[in-house]
Amino acid sequence: EIANLTAEQFQSGSLTGKTVFITAGPTREAMDPVRYISNHSSGKMGYALAEAAVEAGAKVKLISGPVNIPVPERVERVSVESAEEMLEASMLDLGLCDIFIAAAAVADYRPTAIAEHKIKKGSEEIMELHLVKNPDIVATVANSSPKPFTVGFAAETKDVLEYARSKLERKNLDLIIANDVSRSDIGFNSDENAVTLISASSTESLPQASKRQLANRLIERISAQYKSTAR
Amino acid sequence: EIANLTAEQFQSGSLTGKTVFITAGPTREAMDPVRYISNHSSGKMGYALAEAAVEAGAKVKLISGPVNIPVPERVERVSVESAEEMLEASMLDLGLCDIFIAAAAVADYRPTAIAEHKIKKGSEEIMELHLVKNPDIVATVANSSPKPFTVGFAAETKDVLEYARSKLERKNLDLIIANDVSRSDIGFNSDENAVTLISASSTESLPQASKRQLANRLIERISAQYKSTAR
Repeated sequence: EIANLTAEQFQSGSLTGKTVFITAGPTREAMDPVRYISNHSSGKMGYALAEAAVEAGAKVKLISGPVNIPVPERVERVSVESAEEMLEASMLDLGLCDIFIAAAAVADYRPTAIAEHKIKKGSEEIMELHLVKNPDIVATVANSSPKPFTVGFAAETKDVLEYARSKLERKNLDLIIANDVSRSDIGFNSDENAVTLISASSTESLPQASKRQLANRLIERISAQYKSTAR
Repeated sequence: EIANLTAEQFQSGSLTGKTVFITAGPTREAMDPVRYISNHSSGKMGYALAEAAVEAGAKVKLISGPVNIPVPERVERVSVESAEEMLEASMLDLGLCDIFIAAAAVADYRPTAIAEHKIKKGSEEIMELHLVKNPDIVATVANSSPKPFTVGFAAETKDVLEYARSKLERKNLDLIIANDVSRSDIGFNSDENAVTLISASSTESLPQASKRQLANRLIERISAQYKSTAR
């Protein structure tokens, strides 16, 4: 009885004393005071990971774009809108961060200039919107010094594993979690997900499960891989 | 006692037997399977108007973009994403519609072509997004035959009344409700609003109030103006 309890505590305490930063949700990139560019990320996966990490004993900072999910207990949430704000919140106290999990769907591009007043619809049938590339948050984190154990996501609609492997290398990540968002039964707005975990030396598929169950398994795997990394 | 009750029923039944179509919320214009252009409309004003119209005895079709508000009782909600979908739902059975209230914040432009697969971030620092003008829903409705009593909104950040009057004329509306969205205490994501009602012959300002209270007053004014119009 006591042995079981201790074993469970040990299990659930796999991240005790560790600090985990998690980004979640979409970003919104303003075109003017009323319009923006965004994406369909619900934030569910990032929030589930935050909950699982706290249950594993970690101190969690959840850097979240606009979503409709309550803050999990014992999680510190920092609310942001744009990719630039998300980067700033990610870099703040990064030296204290042991594991960084980039679950947010950051907009790749933002409008070059934000109009101060609402853009008036002109008579033009066609309009060009000028976009500039956003900072790459997970790559900036993974190339910082000291670098936390950095976990990225690859949400793709085709050639999923191939893109994920290339992203792992290109961005200097320790681990990448690949999922196929072209399937409507899993991914972005769904409650379920199925993913493949890829590191430099291993590939492991986790079967379809609720995002909450999957989050527990992912935190377990991330924690194990983090510990196996000499640092 | 009985006289009072009857008076109240008469009051609350000012739209008995009438059919009201209301558009609400933002539209989302897809760039690819995951990204979109949208705006900060919460849908609160349109939903409050739907509730008030039902209470005034109307049959209400609420054509709604993506929002996080429950459907009011006795309201038929039709959920749409894009401006094109919203137009289609607005024109369906328009011959049965007595009063059309366009409270949605329809995206003026949409990406010219929706990419089938997620657009890959290239190495380009700059990107041009090609947009094409969306159909003008309220103008299409106001220029239909037979034409319902058509009410538009003008959400502006400057020269609010001037823009609203020009929009009333240009789009052949019967009434326009102008509000200043540059004020953070009222408008888009706020629970309160303050508006000015403009018709060809009158201008009336309604003081700041909750969107629910304001909706009751607006439905009362719209109903009165609708009835004063010979048709």
